[in-house]
Amino acid sequence: MMSTQGLQMLASPKINSERLWASLMEMASIGPSPNGGSRRLALSNEDLDGRRKLLDWAELLGCTWQTDQAGNMFIVHPGHDNNLSPVAVGSHLDTQPLGGRFDGVLGVLAGLEVFRTLNEQGIKTRRPLVLVNWTNEEGSRFAPAMGGSGVYSQRLSLEDFRAARDKDSITLGEALDESGYKGSLTRHDLPLAAYLELHIEQGPILEKKGLPLGIVSGVQGLRWYDITFTGDSAHAGPTPMEYRHDPLMAATGFIEAMRQSVRDDVDGISRLTIGDFQVAEPSRNVIPGAVTLQVDVRHTDENALQQLDDTLRTHVKAFAEREGVSADIRELWHMPVTYFDASLVEDLSSAAQALGYPPFRMMSGAGHDAVNVSYVTPTAMLFIPCRGGISHNEREYAEPEHCAIATQVLCDALLRTANRE
Amino acid sequence: MMSTQGLQMLASPKINSERLWASLMEMASIGPSPNGGSRRLALSNEDLDGRRKLLDWAELLGCTWQTDQAGNMFIVHPGHDNNLSPVAVGSHLDTQPLGGRFDGVLGVLAGLEVFRTLNEQGIKTRRPLVLVNWTNEEGSRFAPAMGGSGVYSQRLSLEDFRAARDKDSITLGEALDESGYKGSLTRHDLPLAAYLELHIEQGPILEKKGLPLGIVSGVQGLRWYDITFTGDSAHAGPTPMEYRHDPLMAATGFIEAMRQSVRDDVDGISRLTIGDFQVAEPSRNVIPGAVTLQVDVRHTDENALQQLDDTLRTHVKAFAEREGVSADIRELWHMPVTYFDASLVEDLSSAAQALGYPPFRMMSGAGHDAVNVSYVTPTAMLFIPCRGGISHNEREYAEPEHCAIATQVLCDALLRTANRE
Repeated sequence: MMSTQGLQMLASPKINSERLWASLMEMASIGPSPNGGSRRLALSNEDLDGRRKLLDWAELLGCTWQTDQAGNMFIVHPGHDNNLSPVAVGSHLDTQPLGGRFDGVLGVLAGLEVFRTLNEQGIKTRRPLVLVNWTNEEGSRFAPAMGGSGVYSQRLSLEDFRAARDKDSITLGEALDESGYKGSLTRHDLPLAAYLELHIEQGPILEKKGLPLGIVSGVQGLRWYDITFTGDSAHAGPTPMEYRHDPLMAATGFIEAMRQSVRDDVDGISRLTIGDFQVAEPSRNVIPGAVTLQVDVRHTDENALQQLDDTLRTHVKAFAEREGVSADIRELWHMPVTYFDASLVEDLSSAAQALGYPPFRMMSGAGHDAVNVSYVTPTAMLFIPCRGGISHNEREYAEPEHCAIATQVLCDALLRTANRE
Repeated sequence: MMSTQGLQMLASPKINSERLWASLMEMASIGPSPNGGSRRLALSNEDLDGRRKLLDWAELLGCTWQTDQAGNMFIVHPGHDNNLSPVAVGSHLDTQPLGGRFDGVLGVLAGLEVFRTLNEQGIKTRRPLVLVNWTNEEGSRFAPAMGGSGVYSQRLSLEDFRAARDKDSITLGEALDESGYKGSLTRHDLPLAAYLELHIEQGPILEKKGLPLGIVSGVQGLRWYDITFTGDSAHAGPTPMEYRHDPLMAATGFIEAMRQSVRDDVDGISRLTIGDFQVAEPSRNVIPGAVTLQVDVRHTDENALQQLDDTLRTHVKAFAEREGVSADIRELWHMPVTYFDASLVEDLSSAAQALGYPPFRMMSGAGHDAVNVSYVTPTAMLFIPCRGGISHNEREYAEPEHCAIATQVLCDALLRTANRE
């Protein structure tokens, strides 16, 4: 499955693509979902079964492991100098309720495949390697998402992390205490020299461009808003248009104008998503009294993201005035643009190029554990295409060939990084 | 409280505005809602208490009463020739869950006040008069609305009427059988020579124009649609705008264009309401897979209503194409424009003019029992302003003076109609 160029790279140990694929499929069978995906909600029995399976595999390699306060798992592949801080690779094994077989899992099992390859060829790196499985990346059972990496990087307090409740009012803290994976270590006990994460793109760009992989140089920034337009509820029939104060018409006018502003971005980088459009007390023949929009705006450039914020506020004001309604903008989250470590991005690019693959640079559209880790550790990511850009879905699919190519690039980049003087 | 001109009309018996207001307030106290409105859901204990109160008042006047299969109540004020079919007046005593004190109630108690006035002055009309309380006008507990008048006019089958279930799965038929108001009569046993209904406008026009009453010459037609746009759900972050198939952006573009088309109507008669905007499986950072709109379009001219239908279909198609999504239009209801009886409209106009009030003609924006009745009986309506156009709300309010003026006009028009040779 490797390219011809790849086969010629005799200097680099060759990963076993069939073994990688078999492990992906075996992990997918733990917590199988009805239509061929996986359901391993964070710290559920299925997630614990998945963790146990990973440890069984790691223990076959003679690896030891540790957990920190957030239940993040650190599986160690010793180096020549184990006093040096390790180079890490990883992602997450938890899934959405009807999740796919690759989101997160690929990053963990690719790291495992690197460990297996190094083990069977008796290769030791200068620095030790660590394979990380971050707790509760998905945030489906316990909000917020990327919780384990958030605690590790001190972007999220341990208290808030543990206080999150699932639908049955069980806290994450309670589930963690029962799981057997609660440790006492923190980032200061487990410093990392570098962190690399392989992930499916969860978007359509690589597939549309026909590329087997992308080198992720950063993550676009995002701003989340709740925007509420409030007018006067009234009967649909007896109220002439001119007397209405219709908040829905303000909201739809705003969205249409905002869409145009985003489409006018010639670079095609601005992104606008309205994930929910809630009508207060909806009734077919009643002019709504209020509507609330959940708005997600993204850009890869922080100045452009600020301009989108200005544009959004201008449009909200204009359309509220047009309809004679009031508007309230609540910004819930502002995640600035993240730029990954230039030297690690270069390691990934060199490894890809050496295998004959174009080192296509891209910015991630989605958040990942790597974003949190990047605040405290040099970090970079590698993407592969996923079919139709579909993720968080049982139909999620990545080609075995792409999984193998990227795992090989990851292996080679890890060797470069962990052997560097 | 009557105008000077009204006081000069010695020929017509003068209604007692204080008695009318006191009865309105007494009825409002049956099933009081938390903030000064009423809650008498159809055939609930409160509705039965309201019906009982009406009968107590009617029996004090020596009136007899009958019910039909739908539990509609017919209270008789005998005429000189009781072989002639009666002239009817009425409306409904049931309310919304948090309803007002005037919607429906005014029409019933204005009729009662006419009966009281005629009684105390010993006046008999040629034809008998009938005061009707229609069952389940609101449709809040049992859908559809205007059920009792629907059965009377054979616009709704008795089976469908009785089969409607409330939230506790009780059928209207079961509630009716227990209520003691189930009769065996039909429209053929209870033919009406004419029907007049006084109602609050439930809209802002009379108040905005500073008029005490409006003569309703018909009811605008309406068409109800469910419109679903279906695209591809995807992550907000990783999916560039150009690769999206976003049904929400199709829906908002459609609404904005439709709004413009309706606003372009120079007569200001077209009405467009989006009562609900449902996002399938909403999530803040996910491009929706489908959205469904509940659309209500109205006009007082049937050809114009058809043009609005054409425009709607054109816009839906255009915006579905713009976003690369599919669209489905389901028309749920088409109620054609209703034109009331010209001679009754003239009776109301003449009565208003004789009292010195401008006979302002208007079309009703809302449906009423009178629409159903108009299919089988000559019908017209009279409106009074309600504060802020607000109805179906505990804050609903009508001025005592307007109630009195309109009840006097109703009384005079009933005399004209019921005495006509």
